[in-house]
Amino acid sequence: MRIIFSLPGSERLGGDLAARLGAEQGVLETRRFPDGESYVRIVSEVGGKAAVLVCTLAQPDEQFLRLVFTARTLRELGASSITLVAPYLGYMRQDTRFRPGEAVTSASFADLLSREVDRLITVDPHLHRHAALSEIYAIPALALHAAPLLAAWITGHVAQPLIIGPDIESEQWVAEVAGRAGAPHLVLRKQRHGDRSVTVEMPDVTGWRDLQPVLIDDIVSSGRTMIEAAKGLVGQGLPPPVCLAVHALFAEAAFAQLAETAKVVISTDTVAHPSNAISVAGLLAQALQATA
Amino acid sequence: MRIIFSLPGSERLGGDLAARLGAEQGVLETRRFPDGESYVRIVSEVGGKAAVLVCTLAQPDEQFLRLVFTARTLRELGASSITLVAPYLGYMRQDTRFRPGEAVTSASFADLLSREVDRLITVDPHLHRHAALSEIYAIPALALHAAPLLAAWITGHVAQPLIIGPDIESEQWVAEVAGRAGAPHLVLRKQRHGDRSVTVEMPDVTGWRDLQPVLIDDIVSSGRTMIEAAKGLVGQGLPPPVCLAVHALFAEAAFAQLAETAKVVISTDTVAHPSNAISVAGLLAQALQATA
Repeated sequence: MRIIFSLPGSERLGGDLAARLGAEQGVLETRRFPDGESYVRIVSEVGGKAAVLVCTLAQPDEQFLRLVFTARTLRELGASSITLVAPYLGYMRQDTRFRPGEAVTSASFADLLSREVDRLITVDPHLHRHAALSEIYAIPALALHAAPLLAAWITGHVAQPLIIGPDIESEQWVAEVAGRAGAPHLVLRKQRHGDRSVTVEMPDVTGWRDLQPVLIDDIVSSGRTMIEAAKGLVGQGLPPPVCLAVHALFAEAAFAQLAETAKVVISTDTVAHPSNAISVAGLLAQALQATA
Repeated sequence: MRIIFSLPGSERLGGDLAARLGAEQGVLETRRFPDGESYVRIVSEVGGKAAVLVCTLAQPDEQFLRLVFTARTLRELGASSITLVAPYLGYMRQDTRFRPGEAVTSASFADLLSREVDRLITVDPHLHRHAALSEIYAIPALALHAAPLLAAWITGHVAQPLIIGPDIESEQWVAEVAGRAGAPHLVLRKQRHGDRSVTVEMPDVTGWRDLQPVLIDDIVSSGRTMIEAAKGLVGQGLPPPVCLAVHALFAEAAFAQLAETAKVVISTDTVAHPSNAISVAGLLAQALQATA
């Protein structure tokens, strides 16, 4: 028997998942004490049940201890297994020492999580120098792909799309989305100079003025890449682009700034955000059913 | 050879400690990415050195991953040992299941920390149902006592003090401070109704109107206990009390509210706060020297 608990920030997706699976929705009380410590209480009976924790890992520093306390309490109360569904998986970007002495947080975070839960299911983790989650996660870790969902949304909502990715590394993924949507694609050349400083080298795209540009990226955080790319396209006379992200982190003023240039900003619901328009609940439900 | 690193929030105390010990002060870069993830870089050479991490654990959820990343990177870079100096140790209050299904965070947090560092030094941890840190910490964990520092401050600054503790559990500690200060003492009866709701039963103290009341407590967080006690004393015609805390958490508006009724609010520097007037650096330096 399966019971699904949602950590703060993942309530809507967790509820959707429970409904799709016809699974029990667990009752979890969490709050913060005035001093900032976390309180966790599992109200539902969990003995002998396969527990699923839905916890998107945007803002992982705030989330981590609460997640650990929840997982450990489930274990103490007799849950038969704990599956972490983290639709967005944090700490995937610092995957090497770019400068001496840097913490390789992708490996440390994976090790910490691997000790607390039995398996992990996520969507489009930012794999760059790590070829697969199994390089850093000691538990079974399943990476699901949102490309078909993005392609389906484009097909249903955009006439004559031109799919555009931010950098060379995204080429394969961009080609897959474009292929499924039956659209041409191209990738830009991004250079990152700092956390909030990016330049995007724009090729001559004046030949594509009759198409509707669709900018896609896996993570939008500071938004600089998409904002620069959107401005570049409009500057060459293309229509304001449709902007599509898998993981809508949108730090600080990123969303407002991007919305100024974009035709529309759309994301999947791996991170709860006003731009969410594509649900990964079906994808996650399918994966959970297969691992039961 | 010893090298001392200060995590954010503990810079002043860490610097003071390094100066007292004549130890190298390590250079640590930390920041947050726009998406809230932590960046950590150890700039100093640490190979073969005994590393000391000074990290007070108020706001532990924010601090925890950064602390783990720092400790693991020190280990990877060849530090010979890692001592965590946490002048305030968080997650000591939820030491049992008051209601079914609650996370016993004291035990989980102790287990997590015990895996990351080799030993722990702290000041006046909130030991209640746990008789000693060794019940929950798997590493050597040293609890230092601030009572002599509090007594010395009272002796130096308050004429004819009456030492007052908040509740029965604090009796032994209050008696020790009072004994060292050569002052009479009494304890009140506190009842907690919620995170921010406390009543304090006030005995008849009108016989003590000629003394200067000094309210002492280990942790002041919401401040409700001290505020209620201070009002009760003034209501019976005693002078506004001197309020003395070991750990100045002062959540939300607690400090401003307490300052309205108190004569003065004083704390040790285990948690950096404007009320800090008693330094635990000497106490910590002594303990570090003894464990070298």
